[in-house]
Amino acid sequence: MDQIDQARIEDEPLLLTPGPVTLSARVKRAMLHDYASGEAVMQETIAWSRRYLLDLCNAQGTHTAIPLVGSGTSGTEAAIGTFVPPNGKLLIHTNGVYGDRLVEIARRIRTPYTSFRTAPYTPPTAEQFAAAIAADPGITHVMVVHCETSTGILNPIESIAAVCRRAGKGLLIDAVASFGAFMLDAKALSFDAVICSANKGLQAPPGLAWIIAKKSALEEAKGNAHSLTLDLWDQNQHMDRTGMFRFTPATHLLLGFAEALREHAGEGGIAGRHDRYRRSWRRLVDGMRQMGFRTLLEDEVASPIVTTFHEPLDPAYSFKALYEGMKRRGFIIFPGRLAAANTFRIACIGVVTEDDIGRALDALEATMREMGVAGMGRI
Amino acid sequence: MDQIDQARIEDEPLLLTPGPVTLSARVKRAMLHDYASGEAVMQETIAWSRRYLLDLCNAQGTHTAIPLVGSGTSGTEAAIGTFVPPNGKLLIHTNGVYGDRLVEIARRIRTPYTSFRTAPYTPPTAEQFAAAIAADPGITHVMVVHCETSTGILNPIESIAAVCRRAGKGLLIDAVASFGAFMLDAKALSFDAVICSANKGLQAPPGLAWIIAKKSALEEAKGNAHSLTLDLWDQNQHMDRTGMFRFTPATHLLLGFAEALREHAGEGGIAGRHDRYRRSWRRLVDGMRQMGFRTLLEDEVASPIVTTFHEPLDPAYSFKALYEGMKRRGFIIFPGRLAAANTFRIACIGVVTEDDIGRALDALEATMREMGVAGMGRI
Ligand SMILES: Cc1ncc(COP(=O)(O)O)c(C=O)c1O
Ligand SMILES: Cc1ncc(COP(=O)(O)O)c(C=O)c1O
Repeated sequence: MDQIDQARIEDEPLLLTPGPVTLSARVKRAMLHDYASGEAVMQETIAWSRRYLLDLCNAQGTHTAIPLVGSGTSGTEAAIGTFVPPNGKLLIHTNGVYGDRLVEIARRIRTPYTSFRTAPYTPPTAEQFAAAIAADPGITHVMVVHCETSTGILNPIESIAAVCRRAGKGLLIDAVASFGAFMLDAKALSFDAVICSANKGLQAPPGLAWIIAKKSALEEAKGNAHSLTLDLWDQNQHMDRTGMFRFTPATHLLLGFAEALREHAGEGGIAGRHDRYRRSWRRLVDGMRQMGFRTLLEDEVASPIVTTFHEPLDPAYSFKALYEGMKRRGFIIFPGRLAAANTFRIACIGVVTEDDIGRALDALEATMREMGVAGMGRI
Repeated sequence: MDQIDQARIEDEPLLLTPGPVTLSARVKRAMLHDYASGEAVMQETIAWSRRYLLDLCNAQGTHTAIPLVGSGTSGTEAAIGTFVPPNGKLLIHTNGVYGDRLVEIARRIRTPYTSFRTAPYTPPTAEQFAAAIAADPGITHVMVVHCETSTGILNPIESIAAVCRRAGKGLLIDAVASFGAFMLDAKALSFDAVICSANKGLQAPPGLAWIIAKKSALEEAKGNAHSLTLDLWDQNQHMDRTGMFRFTPATHLLLGFAEALREHAGEGGIAGRHDRYRRSWRRLVDGMRQMGFRTLLEDEVASPIVTTFHEPLDPAYSFKALYEGMKRRGFIIFPGRLAAANTFRIACIGVVTEDDIGRALDALEATMREMGVAGMGRI
């Protein structure tokens, strides 16, 4: 842990935000090289990264890993556009901002879809998914956010996947916030696509999205896409054939990405990373509760990715002052999202340790004192 | 010049390719920081970059600069999708691979379009554009590649723009290869959109596209786009309102980009950069001709961006051996494109000086000798 801590560049505040996250110096330094897209070193970097990602979710043989230059949202748009055929229909579940964004994408790119909303602070049930699927026989695909970053809730992906398998529906998972820190078993879940960000749990620089796609589903998706640059079928066949991107890749980001994967492996893969995040989260939640703060979610349904806290009711409190005080003390935190008014969020992802969280708790206590927010029981 | 040369990191071959290009160490090092998307430093970086780009093409007031995470092709797709309305029609000119790609985009995203092809090795004329426009009254927009990188030809953008202005058609310019090294005057040309790459003439890391868009045209483009993430109207209004990207930006690339713009200014802006590229190109073409090589294009129609040479007919020659020999000597070069068989290409963009080109000529001579390709007159 100390090793990771020290690997940070200490000239800027630590990001306790759900992305972009703080990276190790080692990952950033890996970007300091210029290579042509087709150089052997780039092809090897890409091939190795694709293999590592497949290994990470037990996806060798059945799935393929497809990179795109773009944000996580580009990845979800590419997956919706590529996998849902014109005569198909996508059922989108939402219980927060990122589920809502999937609905917005489907609407904007004119994918036939229907959506259903469940309560934001409790996970949806398998029965709710089964009922939504049964209600519309036209549904061919189901899409769900794994960790809904706007609240931090973790949607029960195993039981949702089981419903989809039984009903014979293709499953698309927005794992932008969770990939790298949670096991998403391609064989067990049998998903059509998992959408990942390079940033977040994989701790690489933002600007690349990756899609782990089921080969048999992708084969049927030829010609579906609404876009040339977001066509995953095209990108995949080109990469399999040439080892390169169709269009100029972000070479520096790819180098940083591969280094981040090596770091991920060195930390013990998903299990190691998950453990660190969970230890940081435990420390955070316990420490905050000791100070009198309340979490938006019960621990049982919360993810260790990002935690939402209710703001103090004390009129001396303002988020702006909290943000500024934390920043001055070396930490960046995020406000709550619209769906959860009067909250703020603290994330535990990126190059962040339990000790960092300890220091952040001290900083938060000092900032509250500075603002003149009263002691325990102030929430 | 020496200053630029020394600023390079000397542990990898120099890229004499039309992108990715070799960057200065200073630009790469600017990427070594982690900031949250909404931090003041990121907002200032973005705002400053937008202003600099507008200044660069005399576009203040009339135009707006819109960034996207993606390659140059994403930028052209975004521009076509955003600017051409469903009841409009795009006339696409092509005389090479990148013109053909614009046609492919329009076809794939179902933009109403028509296209016309002119000879690859001589520039199209204003009369050809006027005739193509006159032939179809449904045409509302015209799109053209400025520097067609597959041959290196420079299409006569001023006279094409004049035709479009007279005919009242919106003009979209793919300046991915040329922006930063050529003046594209927004007021004089009155273009609707110029699409730029961060890489190439701006010498920033690849992975960002920028679109310089005419505000009045953009205002009419609301709701046109076929994509959420490639909707320039949406991205622009969000950025004007908040100073931030709609979706997580590639923060490290943005830092490198702003540093590359400062370097661009330090070199004397477009004029300074153009001069350096032109001196390198002059040295290259003269040196190659002295060795007996022939260029694909006459100098009058060639750009200093990238130069295409006919391959030697000598059976001892192979591009693979040339490539390998050049790489061993510290230079990466590119093969020709399909449209120009039996050619290879050498580019002069990126952190490359006349002296570098001198050394590359020596390397090429040595490689030819090594291959056993006979002396002068061997082409
Ligand atoms: C679950 C989830 N999906 C999608 C996104 C969108 O990713 P991006 O901001 O990189 O476009 C995010 C970003 O936080 C996310 O947390
Ligand atoms: C003129 C032109 N247009 C478009 C592109 C495509 O850019 P990218 O490869 O970044 O997608 C290129 C790339 O070389 C180009 O030279």
